[in-house]
Amino acid sequence: MTDTTSIVTRPVHGRPITPSRGRWYPLGLDEVTIDDGLFAELQQRNAGAMIGHCETWVERMGWAANFDAAVEGRLPQDRRGREFSDSEVYKLLEAMAWELARREDPDLEARYHALVARVGSAQEPDGYVNTMFGRPGQQPRWSDLQWGHELYCVGHLVQAAVARGRTRGTDEEIVRIARRAADQVCTLFGPDGRADVGGHPEIEVALVELYRLTGEQRYLDQARLFVDRRGHGVLGDIELGASYYQDDQPVREATALRGHAVRALYLAAGAADLAVETGDDELLGAVTSQVLTTLARRTYLTGGMGAHHDGESFGDDFELPSDRAYSETCAGVGSVMTNHRLLLASGDVRHADAVERTLFNVVATSPAEDGHGFFYANTLHQRTPATEVDPDTASPRALASLRAPWFHVSCCPTNVTRTVASLAAYLASVDDGGLQLHQYAGAHLRGALTDGREVELRVRTRYPADGRIEVEVVRAPQGEWTLSLRVPAWGQGATLTDTRGTREVAPGYAEVTGLTDGDRVVLDLPVRARWTVADPRVDAVRGQAAVERGPLVMCLESTDLGSSVNEVSVDTSRPPLDDDGEVMVSVRSREYGAEGWPFRSPDGSAATVRDHGAVRLVPYHRWGNRGPATMRVWMPVDKD
Amino acid sequence: MTDTTSIVTRPVHGRPITPSRGRWYPLGLDEVTIDDGLFAELQQRNAGAMIGHCETWVERMGWAANFDAAVEGRLPQDRRGREFSDSEVYKLLEAMAWELARREDPDLEARYHALVARVGSAQEPDGYVNTMFGRPGQQPRWSDLQWGHELYCVGHLVQAAVARGRTRGTDEEIVRIARRAADQVCTLFGPDGRADVGGHPEIEVALVELYRLTGEQRYLDQARLFVDRRGHGVLGDIELGASYYQDDQPVREATALRGHAVRALYLAAGAADLAVETGDDELLGAVTSQVLTTLARRTYLTGGMGAHHDGESFGDDFELPSDRAYSETCAGVGSVMTNHRLLLASGDVRHADAVERTLFNVVATSPAEDGHGFFYANTLHQRTPATEVDPDTASPRALASLRAPWFHVSCCPTNVTRTVASLAAYLASVDDGGLQLHQYAGAHLRGALTDGREVELRVRTRYPADGRIEVEVVRAPQGEWTLSLRVPAWGQGATLTDTRGTREVAPGYAEVTGLTDGDRVVLDLPVRARWTVADPRVDAVRGQAAVERGPLVMCLESTDLGSSVNEVSVDTSRPPLDDDGEVMVSVRSREYGAEGWPFRSPDGSAATVRDHGAVRLVPYHRWGNRGPATMRVWMPVDKD
Repeated sequence: MTDTTSIVTRPVHGRPITPSRGRWYPLGLDEVTIDDGLFAELQQRNAGAMIGHCETWVERMGWAANFDAAVEGRLPQDRRGREFSDSEVYKLLEAMAWELARREDPDLEARYHALVARVGSAQEPDGYVNTMFGRPGQQPRWSDLQWGHELYCVGHLVQAAVARGRTRGTDEEIVRIARRAADQVCTLFGPDGRADVGGHPEIEVALVELYRLTGEQRYLDQARLFVDRRGHGVLGDIELGASYYQDDQPVREATALRGHAVRALYLAAGAADLAVETGDDELLGAVTSQVLTTLARRTYLTGGMGAHHDGESFGDDFELPSDRAYSETCAGVGSVMTNHRLLLASGDVRHADAVERTLFNVVATSPAEDGHGFFYANTLHQRTPATEVDPDTASPRALASLRAPWFHVSCCPTNVTRTVASLAAYLASVDDGGLQLHQYAGAHLRGALTDGREVELRVRTRYPADGRIEVEVVRAPQGEWTLSLRVPAWGQGATLTDTRGTREVAPGYAEVTGLTDGDRVVLDLPVRARWTVADPRVDAVRGQAAVERGPLVMCLESTDLGSSVNEVSVDTSRPPLDDDGEVMVSVRSREYGAEGWPFRSPDGSAATVRDHGAVRLVPYHRWGNRGPATMRVWMPVDKD
Repeated sequence: MTDTTSIVTRPVHGRPITPSRGRWYPLGLDEVTIDDGLFAELQQRNAGAMIGHCETWVERMGWAANFDAAVEGRLPQDRRGREFSDSEVYKLLEAMAWELARREDPDLEARYHALVARVGSAQEPDGYVNTMFGRPGQQPRWSDLQWGHELYCVGHLVQAAVARGRTRGTDEEIVRIARRAADQVCTLFGPDGRADVGGHPEIEVALVELYRLTGEQRYLDQARLFVDRRGHGVLGDIELGASYYQDDQPVREATALRGHAVRALYLAAGAADLAVETGDDELLGAVTSQVLTTLARRTYLTGGMGAHHDGESFGDDFELPSDRAYSETCAGVGSVMTNHRLLLASGDVRHADAVERTLFNVVATSPAEDGHGFFYANTLHQRTPATEVDPDTASPRALASLRAPWFHVSCCPTNVTRTVASLAAYLASVDDGGLQLHQYAGAHLRGALTDGREVELRVRTRYPADGRIEVEVVRAPQGEWTLSLRVPAWGQGATLTDTRGTREVAPGYAEVTGLTDGDRVVLDLPVRARWTVADPRVDAVRGQAAVERGPLVMCLESTDLGSSVNEVSVDTSRPPLDDDGEVMVSVRSREYGAEGWPFRSPDGSAATVRDHGAVRLVPYHRWGNRGPATMRVWMPVDKD
């Protein structure tokens, strides 16, 4: 166990998570600054548009004002939004906290404090804070653990507090608010209290982090109670089945993630944190095995998780329909959270690969290029163009067609915003012997190995547009140390150039030793566009191929084809053309005649073939930015 | 318009529908008796088990007792079931009425009257009858048109009354009850009343039929109001979108069925009936076009409709996933209702083909072989075996894995039961010039052409086990007449033997003239098992093939394979073996090694191939009767 006293008394370099055990220890936002590549672009968009957009919308929808209404005794009559709307305010506060650690912004700082104060004013004397429950005319507190989201909201309040506590210290008002709320939860649901859990996990991961922030053992103990209680039918059956909220099977006994994807992933993240802090290798092994099985059998090419719109849930193994991919943005966030934790605990590169794939193809896909719209679901095949979205109207639905400015259930915008603001935390880790680079972006890193030796690096790259990653050792740790650079699984043929020359490096971690101040290392990843096919058990994309370029999944949009993408086929006999990122493939489409019963003898039907020649593909994360379109990631392979 | 006076005063031969216009006029249950083939087997199962099963369960669930509780002033506290549970009692009454027209059963008759009496006792003085609304402590009447299902329940009450009125006369108690309820609806929602519609169509088709039964014009007028109001956003937007209940677009303007499949199909049936009675060819044309487009683009090989679990709705064109096929049993019933109406109106054989396909592969699939379990959804690919269903517990879910005895939302069992009891109505129609046979079963037909000339036929066949259909003319109409026999679209190469010899007949209607008493006609349909592939636009089954035998879709069950069906491929280079209905195909399966990321370069992966030799397929409607199993209709085609 680490010395918790020191953790309590000083900000710990803006690390979103601070595990006390594990293979690697993360660097934080005080230690890593991103300044080039797609991650930098996302952070600029977040700063310039997305955070402000979320502030505007929590006001416009009245979700922030619910706290004022609580103070002024205007609830329930003036309450707006669903039962979990408080959590959007908390996730926004978390995003603002990370953003304020990334750059100074007095105006944002002022708005942040004002919003915290509104939340704090609504907290009741015993620490309870929730605008939906407990007042005359409202449902009683804790009366709907299946759907009420009270524990979930406390979890996000705590995460907001952890972000501020890690960047500005534990004396911050939000930390006091969150601790009082958490204390109330620990009293009510503690060892001698109600043996219940909440329908939507989140409190678990939050309580472990609050323990890490404060050193208060009861938060860790409470997290363990919530994890261990779950899976024994404590929430009761519902139409979607108890697997929906992972109450069908104890976490330790499950073999794959199942049920509602966001719930499953938040729970997995919390269970992983708990296992790390308590040295519970059985639990860590169970979560790791579930996640690896999920990556092998229940994950889209994009890294997206959750195959069902119905119940927003995982499907069966290899059930990964393109056109009905749900792949909720928040599940992407949850997968990044979980895989990042397992990476730090285990050092298994597969988790870093999953983080990269998911950041570039799910998290980066959600926000519009102007930062004022978000995908909730992320389909891999859009069959019909959407109708234009009104930028001033919240969408009642999680459709994957055009990015909506806001949703009636609007978990995704704030989730993207808090993740993008804290992206720096995913880039690098350290141990006693060196520093590991997991994700690539132009960046400046200055921190210390876990044994205290200081290190400073400069990373120069336009990644993923370009595969060249140059690492300059500005200041090497004194004595022996190792710089490790991740080579993604797709990076067969990557080369690494250091002071000793150039060598091919295999997927995994390429290690370089003996580097001193001023040395440069260049990792060259083969990002050139390539064809990808699926395991034959993925029935939904049999006979189809996709194009990937480096970590980016590409797609065909009707905007580039000039007609619907539903009838196309592609020639995979030659590699895709790739002119420095301008990717083209040969496309044909078929035109069909009279309509009729669509099932017939294999003798074939007559369709007119039209040759489109070479057609441009765009990165999947950029689709839908040029107006309503049809789109597909997987393209039927031409058999002619 | 027909002479409504005569319609009112006598039972009209047990015809479920009695259109006053159209190409053909149906024969009814008094005129057609089924005695051989799968239809006969289904009717025996219905008589021996299914109807009694439904009676048991509406009692066990307390849904029938809700009417008693209403009488005894014990509502809302004693109410059981969902807001539409009254309708299950009505659908059961409809099934019992048709069954009592099919065969004498004094015990069933007594139980029927007792149940009608309980419903009647709960009717309020103004005609309103619904156990869910309007009492102190309940929501007010008609306060939740989106979800309350009050108009839907009146619709099923009326349909129950029509069944009895058509078989025993309009003096029956149920007819009086239904008329009073319908009158109250017409008063409240009439031309001068609330300009609203109900969230779930059904009242429309029911009111047209009640008009046909009683000759009362206001019922037809009210049906027209309900059809015309819909599609203008009168119900308001919901998370699933106004298309869910077809309130996004007027019936006259839509191009395909969309939204909740059962809602869409019931509305289409009602609109078709309305169009026929009012001579509204524009409306009839719109519905016909929508249904034909739906058959060409949004219908499963089984005839099943509704691709989405989410919203139980139609998907986009050609979006027909096998593993997530919802294909609700009730949508199958709705498709049979709608296509039968359009067949009678138009004489277009495609509607009769759709009725056949749907009866054999959706409606017949739902009930277990013992009649004590039902599929609600009808998947075409079951990836994981279900857990055993408890025969004494209602399932909270519409899973397609094992048939459940009852559901919390239990629309399907009573819908199957009422359809099977009235199957005779789908066999034949008449016009001034002759008689048309649409569906084949061993049967005895005795009726009259629409010009009054009497006709009697004996049909002998084991169809669909065998493709030989012998029609004996027991009594020919006097003078010229034509016997028409449907040749299904799959029936290429069918032959017809009559007094003049044997000839090949094309899909459509084969006509035979000059037949006199004692003549025999033999239609020989090539039911031998055949391979079927899908339009390439159905991405979900690209590279796969299915086997059909006559009108039956076949499937591979793990029970016959000895292992999971998920990894199989089949050799389609030779036709399936078919030894008098014992169908076998050559199957291989692949065994995969270590798990990993399932997307890779097209260079291929090593899998061990196992040759299973010839493996038995079973008719899809029989799957799931031998315990938990995996199953697939579409099988990947071996490329080796």
